[in-house]
Amino acid sequence: MTERATSIWGWGYADKFPDTEARRALAEQVSALLGGVPLSPREPAPLEALRLPSPRIAPPPALAALCSSHPADRAAHTYGKGYGDLVRGFHGDFSPAPDFVARPLSEEHVLALMDWCADHHVALIPFGGGTSVVRGVEPAVGERFRGTVSLDMRRMNAVLEVDTLSRAARIQAGATGPVLEAQLAPHGLTLRHFPQSFEFSTLGGWIATRAGGHFATLYTHIDDLVESTRMLTPRGVLQSPHLPASGAGPAPDRLVLGSEGALGVITEAWLRLQARPRFRASASVLFPDFLTGARAVRELSQAGLHPSNCRLLDEHEASLNAVTADGSAVLVLAFESGDHPLHPWMERALALCASHGGRCPEGPRYRDDSAPRASGAAESWRSAFIEAPYLQNSLVSLGVLADTFETACTWSRFEALYAAVREAVRSTLQRVCGGGWVTCRFTHVYPDGPAPYFTFLGPARPGAELEQWMEVKRAASDALLAHGGTITHHHGVGRLHRPWYERERPGPFALALQAVKATLDPRGILNPGVLLGP
Amino acid sequence: MTERATSIWGWGYADKFPDTEARRALAEQVSALLGGVPLSPREPAPLEALRLPSPRIAPPPALAALCSSHPADRAAHTYGKGYGDLVRGFHGDFSPAPDFVARPLSEEHVLALMDWCADHHVALIPFGGGTSVVRGVEPAVGERFRGTVSLDMRRMNAVLEVDTLSRAARIQAGATGPVLEAQLAPHGLTLRHFPQSFEFSTLGGWIATRAGGHFATLYTHIDDLVESTRMLTPRGVLQSPHLPASGAGPAPDRLVLGSEGALGVITEAWLRLQARPRFRASASVLFPDFLTGARAVRELSQAGLHPSNCRLLDEHEASLNAVTADGSAVLVLAFESGDHPLHPWMERALALCASHGGRCPEGPRYRDDSAPRASGAAESWRSAFIEAPYLQNSLVSLGVLADTFETACTWSRFEALYAAVREAVRSTLQRVCGGGWVTCRFTHVYPDGPAPYFTFLGPARPGAELEQWMEVKRAASDALLAHGGTITHHHGVGRLHRPWYERERPGPFALALQAVKATLDPRGILNPGVLLGP
Repeated sequence: MTERATSIWGWGYADKFPDTEARRALAEQVSALLGGVPLSPREPAPLEALRLPSPRIAPPPALAALCSSHPADRAAHTYGKGYGDLVRGFHGDFSPAPDFVARPLSEEHVLALMDWCADHHVALIPFGGGTSVVRGVEPAVGERFRGTVSLDMRRMNAVLEVDTLSRAARIQAGATGPVLEAQLAPHGLTLRHFPQSFEFSTLGGWIATRAGGHFATLYTHIDDLVESTRMLTPRGVLQSPHLPASGAGPAPDRLVLGSEGALGVITEAWLRLQARPRFRASASVLFPDFLTGARAVRELSQAGLHPSNCRLLDEHEASLNAVTADGSAVLVLAFESGDHPLHPWMERALALCASHGGRCPEGPRYRDDSAPRASGAAESWRSAFIEAPYLQNSLVSLGVLADTFETACTWSRFEALYAAVREAVRSTLQRVCGGGWVTCRFTHVYPDGPAPYFTFLGPARPGAELEQWMEVKRAASDALLAHGGTITHHHGVGRLHRPWYERERPGPFALALQAVKATLDPRGILNPGVLLGP
Repeated sequence: MTERATSIWGWGYADKFPDTEARRALAEQVSALLGGVPLSPREPAPLEALRLPSPRIAPPPALAALCSSHPADRAAHTYGKGYGDLVRGFHGDFSPAPDFVARPLSEEHVLALMDWCADHHVALIPFGGGTSVVRGVEPAVGERFRGTVSLDMRRMNAVLEVDTLSRAARIQAGATGPVLEAQLAPHGLTLRHFPQSFEFSTLGGWIATRAGGHFATLYTHIDDLVESTRMLTPRGVLQSPHLPASGAGPAPDRLVLGSEGALGVITEAWLRLQARPRFRASASVLFPDFLTGARAVRELSQAGLHPSNCRLLDEHEASLNAVTADGSAVLVLAFESGDHPLHPWMERALALCASHGGRCPEGPRYRDDSAPRASGAAESWRSAFIEAPYLQNSLVSLGVLADTFETACTWSRFEALYAAVREAVRSTLQRVCGGGWVTCRFTHVYPDGPAPYFTFLGPARPGAELEQWMEVKRAASDALLAHGGTITHHHGVGRLHRPWYERERPGPFALALQAVKATLDPRGILNPGVLLGP
């Protein structure tokens, strides 16, 4: 009843938006970073000033009890949480709002709504946590439809079955990270999928967008944890068999993973679980520079040690995060296990780092975080990670352009990609904003290449933020593809990445996907414009 | 020029078929196993007595130099190497023979042939090593086509590019295991994908059928080693981006993996490679019985230790292989690494086994096989593994029904599945053959379940082998599906498994796959009847 309110325009809980005074202090710090450009806090448009079009359609009477046309509900389902979403929301522009929001309690409700949408030429947009940063949940479907419905899945959030022997659980798609972990905890099990959006995003959203999670190696995407999926389509229920592995034809789950709501509505999945970790070891390693660190991380990624965290920060990122200020790059390295102490793993990893000039700061070479008390370090790191997106709310209020993007490429392409992308973003920021910052870290690493994650910051001109941002985004995305990177390692395609996705996607695969879409969603009502269609 | 000849009807090299005297000795041993039923060696139909239909079509003149209508070539491309194939070939029945065999040297040749087949209503059957055990390469396409062509890819077998930094290589699809490993060896790298068919099967065949390889955990299927694929289709070239990972939409490679020649012809792929192992540790552990061993292996599979071999033999398998004869189950356990010694890994694994009553036979608790000399143990195990299929040739010549099949299921379903499948096979063998043997081992294990692999043996009635075999196969397959198993963990679907595959495949996914087939192969000429179509 007294659920903690989330921000309509910004990231996370509404009560975490800092007051004007706090944002004034931040303005001073950021201004110094950006060469003294004057910054001052502005206030978001008040609720009563939000600009929403009137609803064009009313909910079907039989489902009216599950639906809301309330402006606050419609506004809260208009955007994801990308930079462009925050800017539009901050200024009160909710023009793409859905005509109504539906909150089904059962698959029957979903199917009834899907039928109704097909019959009435209404677009249906599946909605999980609404944390998309690629315009994946925005009902911007053009004029071809009579209306749009945002399908909020969060009331279908139960852990339905736990198989402790096989360490797997059947979970409803609308469960957020905390909601599903709370239901798994009594069984001594955990999914341990911790995207930065963990608090708000849902299992269904993770699967639909191939979300990246906690593990830096081995189980990097939700893909690796999915045992089977259940997706409702206008042509029936796609329920894949519940198996640890199979070699029977192309894998059905792999069509569901990454389908972004365009092929069906994911309602359940069987997920592989982990024992709660009992042993942990963590270390920070300094390298003279990022590329030297990257060579060490390459060797580490090919050594078969499988660290749970292997986050290499370049000198700019380290400095921005106040970790180091001497031009060093920093590797945040951790191992965890529910089964065994990790000394041999960590010792070998640190030896590899040392052979590349990596040195551990004073104190013990690594921390044994196995004791409950000592696990604070890992927890506090994770808590800082989860808190980070809140900063963007404040930066938007200061009129600062601030965004992140990520990719993956082979090791042999990485150094050129890193140089080119940094330069593309830096020079574009210089040109359109008069200056700015760009930083990089690895979030995940593979034996054949890293997943670099970039952050950029620049002073925006009031009213021109969206154009300035898209110029930087375009320059960055073009540079990624020109240097053998993917347009997204774990944030999906949505409406934002689609032009680059189309360049990356093999032609005959596009034809195949169109054929699948035409078959499973013959009226084209499911999240139109995402992945496919006009 | 003097290439070692392979058997037209049986497994492997022709010169390895034992002479009558040796098979008479085997007959005595097997007869004793089968309760004294009389067995004696028969001889395969001589080359001049093979029954092949006359070719209905001639190769296109422009490609005639790459094509052969020679009966020996046509016979060698008629079947895979399943039990039913061996029996039919042994008796000289090659009625489904292709009209001719084509051996392209380039993608241009493949495309020209694909066009010609489409224009002339001829079925095109991609052929790698011809080791399918599921009738995946048999040109049994019904009367709808004017003819059939077997597309033998083995002349396209080069390693085209090696990226040592990213540990990846671009390899042509026609390369067999030894051919690609020989080209990788000078780079100090290896694919280490060792299916039992390693000597004969090809990279393209592995990808098309989602082959299972050497690693018992983690990298169990070729799927896990594929970085990108290149597949020629009648609608263009499907070339997926060459990336360590991506989150951009459903993964294109996952449509190619398992496509079994029905969607296109795979010509190249980028593969993830390994450093050649420098460290090895191996052990055998005895358990009082199979189910106790299975519980230990379950815990091992969930411990995050990732053994390279983790092969648990049930008491029947151990006894048949003369490993133990006291009712014990045996676990063959090994670790390998190119980076670090493996004592901590093996020590922990053995401790887990010991906590379930597993004991190591006398002598050192485990072997450190890291020294070049000592690596003989692993090599000799692998060599025995590679030799095993030859036995089936001799058994067929003795009139013994002998086959294997495999599955995967969750740990919670395993004990019931094991009991039911054993009983289904045992009782069917009793009914149709008057007796026989059924044994089981794990070839691969996952945190959420094992991949059990069954072998069965029974005395066949001359002339009735195929019907007897299909009765057992049907009983086994029905029992697998009834108890939550998949029809195949790593041997593909082909024409043999299709009825059970259709029961396992989600309905809307079948519709999706049909739509993809109709789009990429609009004339339906590619391996008709495999996965899809009449």
